[in-house]
Amino acid sequence: MTSTPAYDPSLLTGLSAFPLTPLTGETLDEDSYTGLIERLVLAGVDSITALGSTGSYAYLDTEERARVAQLTVDSALDIPVLVGVGALRARDVLTNVRSAEDAGAQGLLLAPVSYQPLTEDEVFELFRTVADSTDLPIVVYDNPGTTHFTFTTELYARLAALDGVASIKIPGFPLSPAGWDERIGEIRAAVGNEVTIGISGDAHGAEGLIAGCDAWYTAVGGTVPEPLLEITRAAELGNADQARELSAGLQPLWDLFAEFGGSLRVSAAIAEHLGLVGADSLPLPVRDLDASAKRKVAEVADHLDLG
Amino acid sequence: MTSTPAYDPSLLTGLSAFPLTPLTGETLDEDSYTGLIERLVLAGVDSITALGSTGSYAYLDTEERARVAQLTVDSALDIPVLVGVGALRARDVLTNVRSAEDAGAQGLLLAPVSYQPLTEDEVFELFRTVADSTDLPIVVYDNPGTTHFTFTTELYARLAALDGVASIKIPGFPLSPAGWDERIGEIRAAVGNEVTIGISGDAHGAEGLIAGCDAWYTAVGGTVPEPLLEITRAAELGNADQARELSAGLQPLWDLFAEFGGSLRVSAAIAEHLGLVGADSLPLPVRDLDASAKRKVAEVADHLDLG
Repeated sequence: MTSTPAYDPSLLTGLSAFPLTPLTGETLDEDSYTGLIERLVLAGVDSITALGSTGSYAYLDTEERARVAQLTVDSALDIPVLVGVGALRARDVLTNVRSAEDAGAQGLLLAPVSYQPLTEDEVFELFRTVADSTDLPIVVYDNPGTTHFTFTTELYARLAALDGVASIKIPGFPLSPAGWDERIGEIRAAVGNEVTIGISGDAHGAEGLIAGCDAWYTAVGGTVPEPLLEITRAAELGNADQARELSAGLQPLWDLFAEFGGSLRVSAAIAEHLGLVGADSLPLPVRDLDASAKRKVAEVADHLDLG
Repeated sequence: MTSTPAYDPSLLTGLSAFPLTPLTGETLDEDSYTGLIERLVLAGVDSITALGSTGSYAYLDTEERARVAQLTVDSALDIPVLVGVGALRARDVLTNVRSAEDAGAQGLLLAPVSYQPLTEDEVFELFRTVADSTDLPIVVYDNPGTTHFTFTTELYARLAALDGVASIKIPGFPLSPAGWDERIGEIRAAVGNEVTIGISGDAHGAEGLIAGCDAWYTAVGGTVPEPLLEITRAAELGNADQARELSAGLQPLWDLFAEFGGSLRVSAAIAEHLGLVGADSLPLPVRDLDASAKRKVAEVADHLDLG
């Protein structure tokens, strides 16, 4: 691609923080939500991605999602806001695109959420439909643990060739540093230099950035941004050893994710412990960790001085 | 459990047919839908389950689902109607329960649809919440290929002990007849005799019924009920050899499911070939089979004299 992107290419680099979307009962807890956004603004994150998996997008209806998009943009001051627009049905994806545009979002995150397993062509056509419908840059959201769709590197390449696709959010893997170099090199060769690559899976953020990822799309960084920003800045300055050391210092946090089924319930427990959200802030049937697990999370949060 | 069920125990036995929910563009194709229901009534199925996976429930909003539930009951004459009420969010499940009740459904089908992986306790609490909210009997819908939740036999037993849980819909597996006997015996021991066991996975229906399943929850039987009713009646009469022979005669149909990623797109292609629904009746991003695959489906449908 030789055309000039219609957006600032730095938009999809650095640390993008994924806030929780706390509920009270079945209702959006707007005060807590804007508190989370203000916290990210104060920390100086590079962008905020509302309505990622951590933001429970898949559980919210189109009206709730429009409201969250607007609250985010209204609270984010000059920090760019990306909005997750994925949904099981393409019709609802397009509705979410319109509400994100109306809110003033600067970019979109799109996951191929599936119930019936989707084919590569179906996923490609979904992204093409969205890209044709908006001028906002699109982050391709690869998260097989939740969407149950597995991207191939070839599909990354097909999507990267679409006008509008601006970044690929890849899942973390337990690879060696050399393994990360190889994997990121392979993706870079497939998607070119005008599409950024962002790592997710918080335990793997440091290695991903060191291996050449442009961005860290971080779940727990939406709740405790500072330690993840430190790692990001170290990696951006080329201080690989420092980035690794900082990430290793957070190992008790990464261990919690492994023990308690991922980052969502742990992030909610940290946010509750820090007084940022209430108990039972997740959308049922998803539930809080039990009391004993919450105590363990609180101990780790205190030990690591999170928040 | 010694209490008398509040429903006719024969409700959740025999052949329950799962119709497609055809769309025209993004709009429910009501005429085609009621045509599909009338066809099932004429065939004499034992029950109709609207809004199963084959009925694209996961893609429809609560208003669309209320409408489909009502259309089904209104068209089904004296055939009992079950309605799928699953949704990612518990709030929406309960809304669907209310609309199914309002429509006059005689039972509910509930799948633990997941985006964030759910724990056993979260799934149990979802079923308990629904069972506490309705007097209608509930079919537990185990379909890991779409819901991405895997039931244990122990969880079947916990759920079967809930007042209101009346049937377990189990996925099909490629087991030997002896393997099926063992598996169904194991489930029967776990759930007791007052909860029916229903087989799904159409290629495995005959073996499941022969091994003692009480019901066949059939996807393609929502589109071509007669040949599946023949198998069901043979098994019910104890004619295992005949049931197996009839199922083996449909092997070209089972092979299509294996080749084309399951029964949904194949069922839609058969329905289109038979003039029951239009092209592109599935909810985007799910698409029709391509032209060459549709030709193959049409050839098999003609060869087997389906419809």
